[in-house]
Parts: sequence; structure tokens; C-alpha cells
Amino acid sequence: MDIDLGSLPARDQYKLLSSTVVPRPIALVSTRSAAGIDNAAPYSFFGVMGEAPAILALGIKKHPDGRSKDTAANIIETGEFVVHMVDEALADGMNACAASLAAEESEAEFAGLELLPSQKVVPRRLAAAPVAFECRLAEHLKTVPDRDILLGEVVSMHVRDGLVDAETLYVDPDAYKPVGRLFGPYYITAANRFTLIRPD
Amino acid sequence: MDIDLGSLPARDQYKLLSSTVVPRPIALVSTRSAAGIDNAAPYSFFGVMGEAPAILALGIKKHPDGRSKDTAANIIETGEFVVHMVDEALADGMNACAASLAAEESEAEFAGLELLPSQKVVPRRLAAAPVAFECRLAEHLKTVPDRDILLGEVVSMHVRDGLVDAETLYVDPDAYKPVGRLFGPYYITAANRFTLIRPD
Repeated sequence: MDIDLGSLPARDQYKLLSSTVVPRPIALVSTRSAAGIDNAAPYSFFGVMGEAPAILALGIKKHPDGRSKDTAANIIETGEFVVHMVDEALADGMNACAASLAAEESEAEFAGLELLPSQKVVPRRLAAAPVAFECRLAEHLKTVPDRDILLGEVVSMHVRDGLVDAETLYVDPDAYKPVGRLFGPYYITAANRFTLIRPD
Repeated sequence: MDIDLGSLPARDQYKLLSSTVVPRPIALVSTRSAAGIDNAAPYSFFGVMGEAPAILALGIKKHPDGRSKDTAANIIETGEFVVHMVDEALADGMNACAASLAAEESEAEFAGLELLPSQKVVPRRLAAAPVAFECRLAEHLKTVPDRDILLGEVVSMHVRDGLVDAETLYVDPDAYKPVGRLFGPYYITAANRFTLIRPD
């Protein structure tokens, strides 16, 4: 089946891309506006792009009138944000942060998620997250008109005790229970592991 | 546990990022050099960044001496590539394409994967892939010194018959069996689905 993707309405392109480029890691992003209002929201047009320095990329949809969403607007305004990974215990809280609240309301508070001070950036981090990356905005791309593509450099990382061996820096694959995004209402756990040994 | 990520050697930063930013979708990327040599290799520093137009992003590690890898060099040289999603049936073939072959050898041939002509780009696509995106290079970022960050615009999409409903464009979640990347030798299937209903 050949699909002339670019000839389809944006919502159909979104439907096809979001249901085939899977499973996606989920970034639960916390920001604080210059006026001091906390925001948190999940995104899965998201990826890691480099490690020296560590670079995370987000593609955040704009409002239909072309304004940036609160998360993107805060990142562009303040240059700072925190990306949290989502595990099974945080899945419901992440989903609650997807609620459309007014700009002056805190999704973390709505979701019952505690915020802790960050080390190097102003936006606070979520205490419940297994992994948090404090980020500074490195690049704001205008490659596409309907999304803010934002590249952040990680300036500090936090990992829940018990997930990473302090000596070897290896993650314990049984202790870390990340959740991935499929499409529509579907998510997956990482319980169904299998192994491939790289050739050579 | 607080980690001053930027103070660690690149390989330790890679270890921590690749084991926590999970599960990642896998891009099996085919390219053809200007001299006509086919290349195919899997990458998971990869994500979808937008849908109108459709944008896929890759972060491809350079060789230690600073040269671009064959995949990135071919994309930069020709401006064209094909991104294939990987399902359970293609997992072994994808892994075989991770072999370090000489630049003049075809990984697809080594892996026993048939190549078909593409519609709008020169690099051929893998017949066995459930989903293929023909792409043209939109941006080549030099955000980090040790990776080529490449943004491609999708100019044509192919889906294996039976995966997408031609009327609704919905993917059949039982027919599509994508594979995700964890870390080290670990991958996951999408069999372990669960549902979250978005608030509002």
C-alpha cells in the first residue's frame, strides 16, 4: 500500500506517523513560565539525539492559531526545562498531566505529583519520576510551521535510587519499568524483553 | 542519585542515556552512495518530530576520527534515504544489518533482505519492512561534534498490506508487531499493551 503522505490532511499524517513510528519513549516535561507558573505535560514526538553533550529533542505541536503551547512557550521564554521518563508507577500521573488545564493551573498539582527543586535550572522536577534530565535549550528549529522543534542539552541527571549501579552505571533491567507510547489509547510496558546478539 | 552527566566520558553518557530513554523506535535506514553502493543500518537515536510535513530525526554517531558513518555520509552526499520500521519478523534482519561490513559491501545483501525500487528517491527500500518512509534531507544540524543530526522530510510512505485500513487509516494493533530498543542486548515487542484514557 503506497501512501502519498504529503497530500493528506495534517491529522491523517499524524495518525499514520504516530501509529507506525512506535514504540516511542515518553517525555513528561516540566517548565515554569517567567511569571512563575508551573506546567507539566507528556510528549512522545521525542528522542535522544546525542551524548557528548547529551541532547534530547522534542517536537511540540502548536495551537491551531499558531501560538506555541505552554510547554514550548515556557522553554523558549526561559531556556530551561526538565524531561522525566515515565515508568509504570508514573503512568497514571503522566496521563493526568495530559489534561487541558488553564495556563495558570499546575498539571503536577492537578495530578497529585510532588515537585522538588532542581539543581541547575529553575523549573522543578517531579519527585515520582524514575529518571529526570534538567535541560537548557540548545536549538529552536522552525523546520515545520506547526510544531516547535526544541533541542535541549542535559545539564544534570537524577535517577531513583536502586535503578543504576553507581560503579558500573548499568541500569537494572528488572528494577526499571519504563512505559512506551503506541497510539490511540495504547501504551506498552517493557516486560516483554528479548535479546539479540549483535554480529561481529 | 544525582549524576553530573556532562562530566562523564562520552561512553558513560551514552550508556546512561541509551538505557533510560526507552523504549525507542528503531529506524533501519537504507541509503545509496553517489557511486551506487547500497547501505543499510539500524539506529535508535531516532524520532518523529512533526507531521505537516512529516519529519523524522536521526542522530548518527561519527567515527572516532570525526568522519561521518556511511549512512550519514550518503544522506549528506545524496540528500536521500529510506527509514524502515522494524517488526518481529524483521528483527533478525535488522540485527544482521548492524554488522560492520566494508563500505563497498551491502548490508541488505549480507542480511538476505530484498531491495525494491523506491518511488521518489534513489535509495531502494527493503521489501520485508512493515513500514517504509522515503525521505529527503531537510536539515543537517551540527549541534554536537560527535554526531550528525539529520532531519528528513517524508516524501512517500509504504505500508505492508493488511496493516492499515485504507478507509480510516487506522493501524491494526494486532497485525502490526513493532519492535522497540531497550539497551545492551535487549529489545521489546509491543505485545504487552495497556490502555490509558486521556482526561477531559
